[in-house]
Amino acid sequence: MSLFKKSAIPVIGLALVASIAVAGSHGAGPHDAAIKARQSQMKLYAFNLGMLGAMAKGEMEYNAETAAGAAENLAKLSTMSMAAAWPQGSDNSAVDGTRALPAIWEKYPDIVEKSKAMSEAAATLADVAGTDLDALRGAIGDVGKACGGCHKPYRAEES
Amino acid sequence: MSLFKKSAIPVIGLALVASIAVAGSHGAGPHDAAIKARQSQMKLYAFNLGMLGAMAKGEMEYNAETAAGAAENLAKLSTMSMAAAWPQGSDNSAVDGTRALPAIWEKYPDIVEKSKAMSEAAATLADVAGTDLDALRGAIGDVGKACGGCHKPYRAEES
Repeated sequence: MSLFKKSAIPVIGLALVASIAVAGSHGAGPHDAAIKARQSQMKLYAFNLGMLGAMAKGEMEYNAETAAGAAENLAKLSTMSMAAAWPQGSDNSAVDGTRALPAIWEKYPDIVEKSKAMSEAAATLADVAGTDLDALRGAIGDVGKACGGCHKPYRAEES
Repeated sequence: MSLFKKSAIPVIGLALVASIAVAGSHGAGPHDAAIKARQSQMKLYAFNLGMLGAMAKGEMEYNAETAAGAAENLAKLSTMSMAAAWPQGSDNSAVDGTRALPAIWEKYPDIVEKSKAMSEAAATLADVAGTDLDALRGAIGDVGKACGGCHKPYRAEES
């Protein structure tokens, strides 16, 4: 099975690949760079979804270009090849600094389904977010649901 | 001028938009979320380019799918709409926790050129990285050069 795909189906998953110490890793752990990379992806999700959510709630003025750009960012993030950022042994029972539960690796095929749901919801949102506020409001819920689809079963509570 | 585009030309730039406090911002500063978002983008650049660089140098075995995925990630990152992550007043003379020089905002059109160079270099690399190691080696240099194109004039030294 291919862990890195160019297709629209994102593969966040498994980690038959070794964790690689890359530029930007200053920590002590062998998985620090990988953990930072996946957390960076999550931060970019949060930043872009935060803007869209603020517009949807009326806390920020709707702007079609801003909305379209942010939604397009989510779609790009959701189709990135992130397998290298999820090496085995980088769960929260093995290392500090992550809330990723071991179940991620134990139930891998489920993660593929969840991430597919995210890329589909993000693509739908990207298609309509620049149309108008109602269209944005109609599509953003499924993206939030897709976030929760992974976070609820696979992420530890904040300690 | 549009700050958020869906075109292939990335607009990292200007920040006529207000800085938005979004989910994930726990800091004290109004620009914390924006700064974290742009730093997250940079970390993802570094992680993916790190893998490709390791392959190019022979420090990691070349794998066509891994290389193609990482290069495609760079291309996606380089075309994200990041204007909201660069609000005015978020330079290193105004706030802590960033190495972004005020010149970024003073010389804005230059940044657009630099980021265009990055998206072009990343697209070229994405086209060939999965072909073979020689093709990867031939295209990775321009990506590194494009990183430096912004970092040299617009990023403070690490203190």
